[in-house]
Amino acid sequence: MDADAFRQAAQSAIEEIISYNKNIASLPVLPQIKPGYLAPQIPTSAPTKPQPWSDIQPDISSKIIPGLTHWQSPKFMAFFPACVTYPSIIGEMYSAAFTAPAFNWLCSPACTELETVVTDWMCQAFSLPPSFLSTSPNGGGGTIQGSASEAIVTCMVAARERYLHRKCTSENLQPNTPEWEDRISTLRGKLIALSSDQTHSSTAKGARIAGTRFRAIPTSYTDDLALTGQSLASTLAECAAQGLEPYYITLTLGTTSTCSVDDFASLAPILRQHPNIWVHVDAAYAGAALILPEYANKYSHHMSIADSFNMNMHKWLLVNFDASMLYVQNRTDLTRALSVSAPYYENKASDSGMVTDYRDWQIPLGRRFRALKIWFVVRTFGLEGMREHISRTIRLGELFAGLVGERRDLFEVVARPAFALTCFRLKPELFEAKAVVNGNGHIEEGVKAPLPDVPAKTPLKSVAATAAATNGTSTPTFSSTNGEHTLNGSASASKAAETTANTLTKNITDLINERGEVFLTGSTAGGKTFIRVVSGNANAEEKYIREAWEEILKVTEEVLGEWRRERGQP
Amino acid sequence: MDADAFRQAAQSAIEEIISYNKNIASLPVLPQIKPGYLAPQIPTSAPTKPQPWSDIQPDISSKIIPGLTHWQSPKFMAFFPACVTYPSIIGEMYSAAFTAPAFNWLCSPACTELETVVTDWMCQAFSLPPSFLSTSPNGGGGTIQGSASEAIVTCMVAARERYLHRKCTSENLQPNTPEWEDRISTLRGKLIALSSDQTHSSTAKGARIAGTRFRAIPTSYTDDLALTGQSLASTLAECAAQGLEPYYITLTLGTTSTCSVDDFASLAPILRQHPNIWVHVDAAYAGAALILPEYANKYSHHMSIADSFNMNMHKWLLVNFDASMLYVQNRTDLTRALSVSAPYYENKASDSGMVTDYRDWQIPLGRRFRALKIWFVVRTFGLEGMREHISRTIRLGELFAGLVGERRDLFEVVARPAFALTCFRLKPELFEAKAVVNGNGHIEEGVKAPLPDVPAKTPLKSVAATAAATNGTSTPTFSSTNGEHTLNGSASASKAAETTANTLTKNITDLINERGEVFLTGSTAGGKTFIRVVSGNANAEEKYIREAWEEILKVTEEVLGEWRRERGQP
Repeated sequence: MDADAFRQAAQSAIEEIISYNKNIASLPVLPQIKPGYLAPQIPTSAPTKPQPWSDIQPDISSKIIPGLTHWQSPKFMAFFPACVTYPSIIGEMYSAAFTAPAFNWLCSPACTELETVVTDWMCQAFSLPPSFLSTSPNGGGGTIQGSASEAIVTCMVAARERYLHRKCTSENLQPNTPEWEDRISTLRGKLIALSSDQTHSSTAKGARIAGTRFRAIPTSYTDDLALTGQSLASTLAECAAQGLEPYYITLTLGTTSTCSVDDFASLAPILRQHPNIWVHVDAAYAGAALILPEYANKYSHHMSIADSFNMNMHKWLLVNFDASMLYVQNRTDLTRALSVSAPYYENKASDSGMVTDYRDWQIPLGRRFRALKIWFVVRTFGLEGMREHISRTIRLGELFAGLVGERRDLFEVVARPAFALTCFRLKPELFEAKAVVNGNGHIEEGVKAPLPDVPAKTPLKSVAATAAATNGTSTPTFSSTNGEHTLNGSASASKAAETTANTLTKNITDLINERGEVFLTGSTAGGKTFIRVVSGNANAEEKYIREAWEEILKVTEEVLGEWRRERGQP
Repeated sequence: MDADAFRQAAQSAIEEIISYNKNIASLPVLPQIKPGYLAPQIPTSAPTKPQPWSDIQPDISSKIIPGLTHWQSPKFMAFFPACVTYPSIIGEMYSAAFTAPAFNWLCSPACTELETVVTDWMCQAFSLPPSFLSTSPNGGGGTIQGSASEAIVTCMVAARERYLHRKCTSENLQPNTPEWEDRISTLRGKLIALSSDQTHSSTAKGARIAGTRFRAIPTSYTDDLALTGQSLASTLAECAAQGLEPYYITLTLGTTSTCSVDDFASLAPILRQHPNIWVHVDAAYAGAALILPEYANKYSHHMSIADSFNMNMHKWLLVNFDASMLYVQNRTDLTRALSVSAPYYENKASDSGMVTDYRDWQIPLGRRFRALKIWFVVRTFGLEGMREHISRTIRLGELFAGLVGERRDLFEVVARPAFALTCFRLKPELFEAKAVVNGNGHIEEGVKAPLPDVPAKTPLKSVAATAAATNGTSTPTFSSTNGEHTLNGSASASKAAETTANTLTKNITDLINERGEVFLTGSTAGGKTFIRVVSGNANAEEKYIREAWEEILKVTEEVLGEWRRERGQP
């Protein structure tokens, strides 16, 4: 493909991308294909002869797009969003054109230096403590990783090495002696990573990769599913009693299941008493909200207890996957653990100590020029544009929480709605009467109490009204009071009713996703199975939020109707 | 940025990329900037207001391009190449537009299924054993990772878990019992990863990440810097005597320093006796040559001893970084070690077992749609076009090795030239006479023997002649005979002469890179410091190879002249 052919092919690709985005709402958000749909449509081996772009491009619309899950669709309300915007795509074009496996400064100085610039920009934009800036006297700084899961395992390895080094040094052992090695061998088996039971699975996986134990500290709905200082203190006491050595903890700002936030205020004093435990704050999704002053005021100052902080620009903040910002207070913690020398890396710039070689801040060697797309997106939107996107989608989340709140006869909100996420399930009270579950989990006898009808249309408040009602602040319309969820009546529900509510809620999620009008994720926390609805998508609109709600009501009616019919109710 | 603004901006970006590529040979291959060049040119914080593309784009040419190392320049002969081609850029455009952190099949089925298709295509194109195909009855398959270093640490973690599981099971222990846990704690401290001393640094780093010991097995020039069965056997005996448990080994097809190839034929019988040691073959760079039948015939069948095999499409094979192909014989080895369940991952497709969730084949959770660019590149070039690129650049490497060989008066070739890489240094014999090195490594008295003049122009054979001389095969023009390097006279050189040859060779490399006419890497292996010249770049041409050679001769003359002047020689 020469320059002229590229010009023509790329322009044609641009038109296809524009057209894809224009029509995205008309596509089913989940592809209507079956597993294994693709291979039979494609030759079983690579072509020997070159093919022109005119032969290749048509396969995008005929074979690839039908197999895509459309994360940019306004009907995509599953997981967390993965936004992409036009300036971000242009960033990827240049990044590919300037390709370099930029493992050290010399490999492409602009790649390293722009990364330092944009991580510092975002550190300020999130009002993080200045100790995370590249210019901080403590030697902090930011780097761009591929994903929050990589950031976590990177920090865990650094934490493990820091812990072992400090411990052995404090015992007056000398590195590179048999005594040091023996002590480390013994200690390894005792190391334990901690997090709450709501922490993303990547902490458990990280511990497995790092070869250490892991313990999930229980949370409860009473504490809004947050990890508290008290629970941490008792886990630390337990570990001490068992001869285990906690070396690392993940705290979360916005958990995956429910966007709960760990209780930094009560955790801080405990963690200050344990300076050898590495504190990582995982703000992968919700960290984007720190761009809003009201969120920054509430959370950012707490980040001073963190050795490392991570948020993904590629979730809610308009940059396409991958662009995961990792900040540390002390870069030496990373480089001591992860730097491996080799003669082919030697160069005058690295030797001078004047440059950053980001390969020593991460697990892989090579790295892409990810800073470009962040630079383009931040400049194209400006902080104002990014803030507007975040607050607009939070308001849509409040609208949705409000809709659910208006149907307290049917649903209960599970956990405090936050960060454009609402989690809810069928009320267990609906199934209180005589629900009995047999050994296979099947419901044998059902509720005799009349279930409410689900009207096809419900009169609802508009976004504007919802926003006005909350004075434009981030307080969910559907808030809990003093940590007690006012709508959470499940304490009184029987186990059987709980099981029925969970099972039917899961059936609703599955049926909605099977129909493909809207894509939602289900999850489970603290014994409750629920539906998650996220409105953080860049294309999210009130219209689609309302349509999703109507779809949920419709499917709920069907599932409840089917359930009633199965037990002979009218 | 709306669709119209994107169209205009992207078209403008395309023109800039085309123009960048057209002019790339005229840019200094290494940027002429100093560390810290960028930050002073950029505001210290992010802009509040949105900026139009017309304000952003000019910064590419004024601030970014001057700070790039131009990996596509035909003057780039350092490290290994990182090729990018136009269809690859188009792949990145679509991948960004279709963005998804595609951690499971449901996240975007096309992303998973096309990955299976292209990994199978390349498995066949490299004539790898069919046990690496996704359709193999043994449950093998390929996946695309970000880098060879990620692939290695992924396999090491899987190897560690497989080893521990097999060992405990063989001792009749039951999983999830205190006895099992205790045994694993004891075993962990004894686990040791192996490789040759020529293996890429990522194996040592991987062992650190996985929290195990690591031992580099010595190689020698007598064996072409290859790991041999004999050395492995004695290391295994050593480990056994020391109570250590080898669980993993990296073998290399094309080492980073010299492109040496481990001696698979003698290693295979030893490794077959140790089926619990995971064998990984790192063919990150040189694996691309397996697309040529003559290389496949020589090497591919040996890969049957490997549990895993890795090569990077993003080095020599025309796909931009990142696109690292990892093949395993048994996918369960990966998924058992790396799968972590969470309620938000549950979906009917995954539960059915009918789909692949590649997140369980890797360390990070999220993954990009990397298969698209591979698909576009393979189809645009066809296997014929890819083969032509590899054989053309190998011929250029043979040309260069031939040029060095014509100056046996000045240089010795270090290790067998292979895979478009030639490694050479100043002959130590040049410095034999009376060279004395003081305690600081400075030369106090130099050679009195007359050094040869370095003519500015040397009559040289053409590529065609070189290729003809080698009958178009891949045999380097500069070959060794029976494992003895005919040009390697260093056995007889004194230590001081060796040191002088090494120091001045490094000075030549540094000075060449400082001038920026051509970018080369230096390295060291087995006590010899040398210059590496690689011609695998997609834009490599005979003209630039010859110019690089002239530059090397010129700088060599300067360095030798300076050295002579310092010791008062004419």
